[in-house]
Amino acid sequence: MTDEEPDQARHTADEPASTDLTHTTEGGDVQMVDVGEKPESKRRAVATGKIRIQPSTVEAIRADEVGKGDVLSTARVGAIQAVKHTWETVPMCHQIPITNVETDVDLDDDAVTLTVTVETTGTTGCEMEALQGVTTGLTVVWDMVKAAEKDEDGQYPEARIEDVRVVEKRKVRVDRD
Amino acid sequence: MTDEEPDQARHTADEPASTDLTHTTEGGDVQMVDVGEKPESKRRAVATGKIRIQPSTVEAIRADEVGKGDVLSTARVGAIQAVKHTWETVPMCHQIPITNVETDVDLDDDAVTLTVTVETTGTTGCEMEALQGVTTGLTVVWDMVKAAEKDEDGQYPEARIEDVRVVEKRKVRVDRD
Amino acid sequence: MTDEEPDQARHTADEPASTDLTHTTEGGDVQMVDVGEKPESKRRAVATGKIRIQPSTVEAIRADEVGKGDVLSTARVGAIQAVKHTWETVPMCHQIPITNVETDVDLDDDAVTLTVTVETTGTTGCEMEALQGVTTGLTVVWDMVKAAEKDEDGQYPEARIEDVRVVEKRKVRVDRD
Amino acid sequence: MTDEEPDQARHTADEPASTDLTHTTEGGDVQMVDVGEKPESKRRAVATGKIRIQPSTVEAIRADEVGKGDVLSTARVGAIQAVKHTWETVPMCHQIPITNVETDVDLDDDAVTLTVTVETTGTTGCEMEALQGVTTGLTVVWDMVKAAEKDEDGQYPEARIEDVRVVEKRKVRVDRD
Amino acid sequence: MTDEEPDQARHTADEPASTDLTHTTEGGDVQMVDVGEKPESKRRAVATGKIRIQPSTVEAIRADEVGKGDVLSTARVGAIQAVKHTWETVPMCHQIPITNVETDVDLDDDAVTLTVTVETTGTTGCEMEALQGVTTGLTVVWDMVKAAEKDEDGQYPEARIEDVRVVEKRKVRVDRD
Amino acid sequence: MTDEEPDQARHTADEPASTDLTHTTEGGDVQMVDVGEKPESKRRAVATGKIRIQPSTVEAIRADEVGKGDVLSTARVGAIQAVKHTWETVPMCHQIPITNVETDVDLDDDAVTLTVTVETTGTTGCEMEALQGVTTGLTVVWDMVKAAEKDEDGQYPEARIEDVRVVEKRKVRVDRD
Repeated sequence: MTDEEPDQARHTADEPASTDLTHTTEGGDVQMVDVGEKPESKRRAVATGKIRIQPSTVEAIRADEVGKGDVLSTARVGAIQAVKHTWETVPMCHQIPITNVETDVDLDDDAVTLTVTVETTGTTGCEMEALQGVTTGLTVVWDMVKAAEKDEDGQYPEARIEDVRVVEKRKVRVDRD
Repeated sequence: MTDEEPDQARHTADEPASTDLTHTTEGGDVQMVDVGEKPESKRRAVATGKIRIQPSTVEAIRADEVGKGDVLSTARVGAIQAVKHTWETVPMCHQIPITNVETDVDLDDDAVTLTVTVETTGTTGCEMEALQGVTTGLTVVWDMVKAAEKDEDGQYPEARIEDVRVVEKRKVRVDRD
Repeated sequence: MTDEEPDQARHTADEPASTDLTHTTEGGDVQMVDVGEKPESKRRAVATGKIRIQPSTVEAIRADEVGKGDVLSTARVGAIQAVKHTWETVPMCHQIPITNVETDVDLDDDAVTLTVTVETTGTTGCEMEALQGVTTGLTVVWDMVKAAEKDEDGQYPEARIEDVRVVEKRKVRVDRD
Repeated sequence: MTDEEPDQARHTADEPASTDLTHTTEGGDVQMVDVGEKPESKRRAVATGKIRIQPSTVEAIRADEVGKGDVLSTARVGAIQAVKHTWETVPMCHQIPITNVETDVDLDDDAVTLTVTVETTGTTGCEMEALQGVTTGLTVVWDMVKAAEKDEDGQYPEARIEDVRVVEKRKVRVDRD
Repeated sequence: MTDEEPDQARHTADEPASTDLTHTTEGGDVQMVDVGEKPESKRRAVATGKIRIQPSTVEAIRADEVGKGDVLSTARVGAIQAVKHTWETVPMCHQIPITNVETDVDLDDDAVTLTVTVETTGTTGCEMEALQGVTTGLTVVWDMVKAAEKDEDGQYPEARIEDVRVVEKRKVRVDRD
Repeated sequence: MTDEEPDQARHTADEPASTDLTHTTEGGDVQMVDVGEKPESKRRAVATGKIRIQPSTVEAIRADEVGKGDVLSTARVGAIQAVKHTWETVPMCHQIPITNVETDVDLDDDAVTLTVTVETTGTTGCEMEALQGVTTGLTVVWDMVKAAEKDEDGQYPEARIEDVRVVEKRKVRVDRD
């Protein structure tokens, strides 16, 4: 069994939708979720996303990487820091002990794909952390290549961040089948 | 003329691509861009993006909004704070005086669209700030509705952040034609 | 018995007062308290306080709440974030795992009362966290209504924060009688 | 004329109260106030407040002060840092250049009074910064003396923060009469 | 045996040096180290360092200390805060529970020596935390005495931070002999 | 003339030393320095320092640099972030607009030397920022190579940070002769 919060699964048609918003009370007020009763276990989440940029910019990153790799390593640092800061940036998140962060970068012809894996021993899942790692890491790439992406009018006609998803979320060491 | 950095426009075919990566030195090292010589002026950037979620989740947000609106107002707060923190989250960004932040939320049948407008009187553009506002605000929405979006296996089959773009970047009060 | 630190109770007449300042060494230097030997247990603290404002401002908040509730929900977010940041704002505080934060708001004729409940599984109490939640949440209310509270001279003749207290501090699940 | 925002003065009976909440839009959404058009000038705000504690605790602070003064100097540092962090802790605040912070501490028989003066050259007032300095500095005092203030049940029967007010808010060098 | 990470000891001649850089992957990418499998235990690290300043400046600090001691107590606060913030300032560090911080200051004729002891119950060592405490605390001393150290040209001919070392790193309660 | 604060130069024999501690009041209390009256100008500070490590570790860094350079680029990012965060880490520092940060790394046989240049248009000097950049960047190097530097007992017999100095501090565009 992999679902860590079976009682919070997607609502079905005959349930009132409002009960699904666990960050708001029945009265509608914003709240954190009480995790004091939850058991600690090892949890893992993987998120991914991509930034679409011009092929020539991908080439510039690739060329740079042969030399010092600073564009991508700065993006990795930005992603790792964003993971650790999620409890600050996403207001209702708890601060959980992050035990591992992995960042994988793939260069396509016209895109950079960033995949961030986060592991925690805390009492809540860590998919928000993985998502923050992905979106921030991709924004760092954008920042590092922005001169190359701007058109003559100073705009970004092609750059965009897309397809940011949670590709896996589970308790580690629990069989998924 | 609206282009604030004409000398950093998109490279053309006969220019070496590497000159476009202004955040890396000729030797390939990561660096901040010197903005000490740049004139101060009023700048404005608008970014937008959306989170695709289930129609029933949009309904839950909408119902909540009639009551207290905490999902969306927490997302707004998260977006505004992310704008102000961009100098920390995006390593090569300067800290600039943010004079205004506007957040606009649109609810579609199966998506929430967030548009963030940032204005500054600083010496650099503020599109990274607007992008951080959008991606963080959308992640906050995700966090607030995650119980509703999870399937029985604890996964998020439908939720995704997409189409995050800079829709406008200019010096304010300069005609664009 | 509910007192978590019996050896640090209020001094009696025949004890030298100086031994009570656990954040200063015998030599008078500032220090953190060593919590490495303390057992982990579930602890809970409740603090409360109020901001006194004009009746017309309370009405404006109330009217707003019927619409979107952003004044109070922003105050709640500010309070929750302040709780989580106490280890930074109060220099000698340890960073403890916050497992739950509840915020309760009461509107009186001429005041807003905020009560913040904090729970932790850490090795120290969390009343400083609850106090920081209360004072920051009330300051956020002040910030949100400041235009309404200023007199024609730009001053705040009536607004004040008062009666900020710890109303309860205990280990959870321990009988208090 | 000392009022820096004459158009935001306290509403009168015939004005609708809702227009006074400048941090919410007409639609009721939370927002920052646009300060891009405001002139820069030198502004100053003074806030004050007190923590009521037992006479014996005041004596302990006083005794300590003769030695090393760490209780009060830690409170001063906490207050100054809180002033500088107000743009983070109060969500709708702008980050303004703080040019000066003064902290004054008075010891009464059963209370510590903290007065914080903040000066800025920014485009908005700095009374929220002064208030955050006062409430945080007083919380630091509480934290430093908490062992002395707890009763045998671990509670704080007498400690409380009270009378936190803005005592002055003005543009510097403007005559007040 | 005190070595907590025997498999990460200093490489010998016949091992490839590159395997020692645990913060870079085999492919050379920056990464955090996975600590999810490591047992929790009580760890302790002591770092020390000194700032060399003019004898007259040491005298000024000493004189001040007799009065209020603010120079050194501000340095202590800065050191303690730096210890707690190491997970932010050193990008690949994990956030670990700091259970104790001790700061010791020695005044020599022409130097201030700061020793910082950090204890944690986390899964990694805390020597980076101790080092950050030392270097930041010494920088705070520099900041507090900078007017006294500047020559007539505004330069610092004599001030320097030196000899910053980890003097001890071990699991607590393990015999070292 | 390059000295930006002639009235704060190193005291001479006939001046009382205590007047030099500008961060403490005459009464000995800690304080920020009022910079509201100071003119804005372009200022620049250069600090340098080195970490002494084993020759084999320098080789490992060098080998890595040929590949991806992540050790040094992470150190650069750490240094740049530390520069921008100095107003938080050094309690009495003002937050000033950092317009440029340059990081230079030299690899010697048994040491890494880091030089950080900071420029600002603010009203105070930026040598504390440069120092924080140097000490943090060097600590990041230490963190990245710690497995290689530990001996079989888990200690660091050779690693140390030393010779951290301000090598230049001036208003830019002012002749120094």
